[in-house]
Amino acid sequence: MSDIEIARKAKMKPISEILKGLDVPDTPEAFSPMGRHIAKINLEYIESLNKNKDGKLVLVSAITPTPAGEGKTTTSVGLSDGLNKLGKKSIVCLREPSLGPSFGMKGGAAGGGYAQVVPMEQINLHFTGDFHAITSAHNLLSALIDNHIYWGNKLNIDVRRVVWKRVMDMNDRSLRSIVVDLGGVANGYPRQDGFDITVASEIMAIFCLAKDLKDLEERIGNITIAYTRDKKAIYAKDLKAEGPMTVLLKDAIRPNITQTLENNPAIIHGGPFANIAHGCNSVIATKASLKLSDYVVTEAGFGADLGAEKFLDIKCRKSNLKPDCVVLVATIRALIKKV
Amino acid sequence: MSDIEIARKAKMKPISEILKGLDVPDTPEAFSPMGRHIAKINLEYIESLNKNKDGKLVLVSAITPTPAGEGKTTTSVGLSDGLNKLGKKSIVCLREPSLGPSFGMKGGAAGGGYAQVVPMEQINLHFTGDFHAITSAHNLLSALIDNHIYWGNKLNIDVRRVVWKRVMDMNDRSLRSIVVDLGGVANGYPRQDGFDITVASEIMAIFCLAKDLKDLEERIGNITIAYTRDKKAIYAKDLKAEGPMTVLLKDAIRPNITQTLENNPAIIHGGPFANIAHGCNSVIATKASLKLSDYVVTEAGFGADLGAEKFLDIKCRKSNLKPDCVVLVATIRALIKKV
Amino acid sequence: MSDIEIARKAKMKPISEILKGLDVPDTPEAFSPMGRHIAKINLEYIESLNKNKDGKLVLVSAITPTPAGEGKTTTSVGLSDGLNKLGKKSIVCLREPSLGPSFGMKGGAAGGGYAQVVPMEQINLHFTGDFHAITSAHNLLSALIDNHIYWGNKLNIDVRRVVWKRVMDMNDRSLRSIVVDLGGVANGYPRQDGFDITVASEIMAIFCLAKDLKDLEERIGNITIAYTRDKKAIYAKDLKAEGPMTVLLKDAIRPNITQTLENNPAIIHGGPFANIAHGCNSVIATKASLKLSDYVVTEAGFGADLGAEKFLDIKCRKSNLKPDCVVLVATIRALIKKV
Amino acid sequence: MSDIEIARKAKMKPISEILKGLDVPDTPEAFSPMGRHIAKINLEYIESLNKNKDGKLVLVSAITPTPAGEGKTTTSVGLSDGLNKLGKKSIVCLREPSLGPSFGMKGGAAGGGYAQVVPMEQINLHFTGDFHAITSAHNLLSALIDNHIYWGNKLNIDVRRVVWKRVMDMNDRSLRSIVVDLGGVANGYPRQDGFDITVASEIMAIFCLAKDLKDLEERIGNITIAYTRDKKAIYAKDLKAEGPMTVLLKDAIRPNITQTLENNPAIIHGGPFANIAHGCNSVIATKASLKLSDYVVTEAGFGADLGAEKFLDIKCRKSNLKPDCVVLVATIRALIKKV
Repeated sequence: MSDIEIARKAKMKPISEILKGLDVPDTPEAFSPMGRHIAKINLEYIESLNKNKDGKLVLVSAITPTPAGEGKTTTSVGLSDGLNKLGKKSIVCLREPSLGPSFGMKGGAAGGGYAQVVPMEQINLHFTGDFHAITSAHNLLSALIDNHIYWGNKLNIDVRRVVWKRVMDMNDRSLRSIVVDLGGVANGYPRQDGFDITVASEIMAIFCLAKDLKDLEERIGNITIAYTRDKKAIYAKDLKAEGPMTVLLKDAIRPNITQTLENNPAIIHGGPFANIAHGCNSVIATKASLKLSDYVVTEAGFGADLGAEKFLDIKCRKSNLKPDCVVLVATIRALIKKV
Repeated sequence: MSDIEIARKAKMKPISEILKGLDVPDTPEAFSPMGRHIAKINLEYIESLNKNKDGKLVLVSAITPTPAGEGKTTTSVGLSDGLNKLGKKSIVCLREPSLGPSFGMKGGAAGGGYAQVVPMEQINLHFTGDFHAITSAHNLLSALIDNHIYWGNKLNIDVRRVVWKRVMDMNDRSLRSIVVDLGGVANGYPRQDGFDITVASEIMAIFCLAKDLKDLEERIGNITIAYTRDKKAIYAKDLKAEGPMTVLLKDAIRPNITQTLENNPAIIHGGPFANIAHGCNSVIATKASLKLSDYVVTEAGFGADLGAEKFLDIKCRKSNLKPDCVVLVATIRALIKKV
Repeated sequence: MSDIEIARKAKMKPISEILKGLDVPDTPEAFSPMGRHIAKINLEYIESLNKNKDGKLVLVSAITPTPAGEGKTTTSVGLSDGLNKLGKKSIVCLREPSLGPSFGMKGGAAGGGYAQVVPMEQINLHFTGDFHAITSAHNLLSALIDNHIYWGNKLNIDVRRVVWKRVMDMNDRSLRSIVVDLGGVANGYPRQDGFDITVASEIMAIFCLAKDLKDLEERIGNITIAYTRDKKAIYAKDLKAEGPMTVLLKDAIRPNITQTLENNPAIIHGGPFANIAHGCNSVIATKASLKLSDYVVTEAGFGADLGAEKFLDIKCRKSNLKPDCVVLVATIRALIKKV
Repeated sequence: MSDIEIARKAKMKPISEILKGLDVPDTPEAFSPMGRHIAKINLEYIESLNKNKDGKLVLVSAITPTPAGEGKTTTSVGLSDGLNKLGKKSIVCLREPSLGPSFGMKGGAAGGGYAQVVPMEQINLHFTGDFHAITSAHNLLSALIDNHIYWGNKLNIDVRRVVWKRVMDMNDRSLRSIVVDLGGVANGYPRQDGFDITVASEIMAIFCLAKDLKDLEERIGNITIAYTRDKKAIYAKDLKAEGPMTVLLKDAIRPNITQTLENNPAIIHGGPFANIAHGCNSVIATKASLKLSDYVVTEAGFGADLGAEKFLDIKCRKSNLKPDCVVLVATIRALIKKV
């Protein structure tokens, strides 16, 4: 059976039941259901768990992988399922997949075989709309920049030095390099621009490092958006953009919980690119998981030389996390591959 | 108190309770909760109501309005609340507001004063992600078009005659007129393009006229996307785009239910522009409402001369709907206004 | 025989001999030879003729013409040749043809049959470089505008309101609508631009109305090149452009003399479009001709309703010229043509 | 006195007198005067000198120069003047200066002090229009390319792989990187393009290496203008462009003769960039000079390591020229300069 056939045959439990296993009560204060098998956990509820002891943090990394990957996600899911089988409370913490590469044929990012998280299709399509919210917040900042220039450009933004590109959750090479603001006086001041894929947005990276909504807002305010002709940096806060942008992210920031095929909890939240950002799920999700369970199994993108280093040097250092154990996935295929 | 202050003080009931009032059971087959106060009703469930008798359809229109509008939405909400007060089962059927103009200062579209639908902020921000899904489906078609051209252009699409623009749910004048596919051989064949606002997408119009998912897919396939140099039309189905696009819309197509300040049901679904499209909520939502209640109060954008005509000539004609009553909102302000 | 075959068989006289017939001495002060059969008459020499009595000015116009034209140029050439045959001193005064439409298949503008001016090929190709000089002067102003913007834009030129396009003496539709200043910080501030054909340049119109080099420089200084964001006009003189531009035109401003197939003098100088400008040869050439001969036969573009009106209302009014006679060319073809 | 003051006080002789010193008769067959002090020597006349013995070829090069140059042109002019003083017949052979950098403040290229060629202003401005002709020929090819694409693109030119840019004899950074063919169906297929300066045109390089008009036409036909999507090269001859382009160059190809301040002959013809092309005057001019005099003093751009090498490896090898003597200009300033 293919991954999707296996996923479609999954016998999922109501998400409230999965949460109950983590001692999370079915109240509006604790979580919001997003369909019958997905929920968003409230940040206030997570804060209320501060007195809990942290569980053990297990990082799953890999030797330098082959193009197809070596199985970090399946190992993570399987390991967490195994710990649960042994009677431990364990949560697997993963990244949200990008819609773009899904349609670009890279396949989902929700494990495979019998080590999957479900409901697979929702997770691989819009899921709970987090990436759409990040896209909206990102492009709102773009619109504010061009709007500021249009209405007199008091900040003296140099249109050649706008470094904040737009984003779309789509593999669309046509938008990589574009010229915007054409069409005459009514539209704007022409400039070169381009779209990145949403997972490459700086908002995505910030979102995954923020410790709460207030911290997120502050980090957003500090984004460098452009330079003046004299090369003086201009920030998002100079446009008072951080407030409305954060409003657009207030639901997205709440971690998503779903389940594995074996009905164990899986928290899937945030998904920065591993090549240009730190490539692991959100700090908020990891920290919440540590408060909710004995073991948290998480993974970091690419091989140990890139992903694990970033996990340790960026995510852990910035957030006072410390893995108790690192699992290194190694395959014969990767060991014998020709570079 | 301002609209938002009133809205924030609302004493909302769980959405399952609102649905219960319409005899909709709290089962995965009937609806999916989207948070505690919003739900999406399943299409299969709606189909199961076919034997029910239709309620009465009330259209709220207005004399030619002043720029601020004359109060169609508040009248609709108030009328439905009043019918419920009288012991009738009544649903108010509204359009979803666009995120773009919200940030563009036009204000939400969820009524006002004590005649509002809630939760106001969710409805005015991402709501249940329907517009994001429409944006994704629309832009997927754009990406497929440019991708087809990139990989040899078997259909002989004339890059000057691509009529399918991109969309974003944002008021962003910078994107109205752009040049895409710059940056050299790796990106694509340069062409002029532009973004419309999502509510102006043809997908939005189609979405609101479709009677089910299969009908939606067929209508999407028939979209004209471009012409050849010889002016032969090319359709979305020529790119086999309708399948993946419809997959992206399979949750969005399910009507959203929420409540008024008086805890009566409000179905809010779809939102095509009234200027370029037919400007009323989805056929699926209206028809579902007629099966679920005695009265369905709905509105059509702009004044009677535009909105009501489109409602009758397009929506009703295409869907075999027939209003039992038309309420015409008239204000002294509109009567005395100077043109 | 075709026009070009006839032209190639022409028995041309040395240009100094033609000039001698007009009592112009073969001295560096009087004229400069440009090859053996073309010369440029010096402006200082022309001024020295001020005491001479003016000859008679004959305007050749036509009824509303068919697309191919009705024969104004051949009539003008023939009429002047006839007057010379009768023993009168007569000069035919024509416009210089554009290189662009030559290669664009419109054919030259030097008469036809046995009523031609020669050497045909030089006249229809680069001639004495006047149009190249106008192109250079025009584009120098364009370069100065963008350079000014690049180096800080002290005049606050609004890049969306630059009304001075570039020109090329070429029918090149690809350059009609372009975006310039791409490529990043080192190149400039992107803006929409376009190329017109050289004969449509405002320089061409000014050049043909100027009475001398000083007047030309002043008129160039008064060209509106752009507006500020507040819609304040900016002029060429604000960039101190008129000096260098006039230097580039100092040879072009001298009228070109050549000959008809019957070895009578033909002065061919300037060539503004008849549709957007006044469509007749330079004032300097016409006035010089009046001082040099008894009769000056000249023509004005298109039919009497457009060309003759412009000749009278613009060229004559601005320059105190007054035709003594108007010849109206009428053909059966034009009279019976279906519109 | 400044260079220009010295130049303006020059006592120039009629160009026919200079030519007479080289035994060139004042006939239409031998040369065409371009004003009183410049002439173009006919190619047929040059061919008629084939039986003459070649003079001695002297190359003036320099050690690696400082930014201001070390004086190759003044040395060349002075050396030729000196040889004439000694009673030898000597011609100095130089490149034509570009109009672009003249206005871009690099100064002319006609020597300095009392070792100049005159008339300085004409030489530094339009001169005899050679560069304008090259610009026209070059841009005609550009127009033909876009026109071919516009009318159906039978050759399957890939618009992303057009390698033939446009040119202008102007320092205009705004045109380096542009997008052309915008404005809709009537204009063309959008593509990225750019303008080079005319001296960087491949036509300029070809022009200076061609041995006659027929050779020029053949070389033009072999220019690579673009590639198909499958990377197959397309040539100018595929568009039948070489004929009309050569017509535009038929006068430019004739060498220009003028004089030094000491009234000795100077032939100034062609001017390819020394950085991207071979950087010396035309083969036709050098060969004609060798037939007309005992000594030909010429120079090659930049220092010996670049300019002299290119002179020897490209110009001499391709044209069977062989310098009899190389003069190396060395200055203390260049020797002590810090790199």
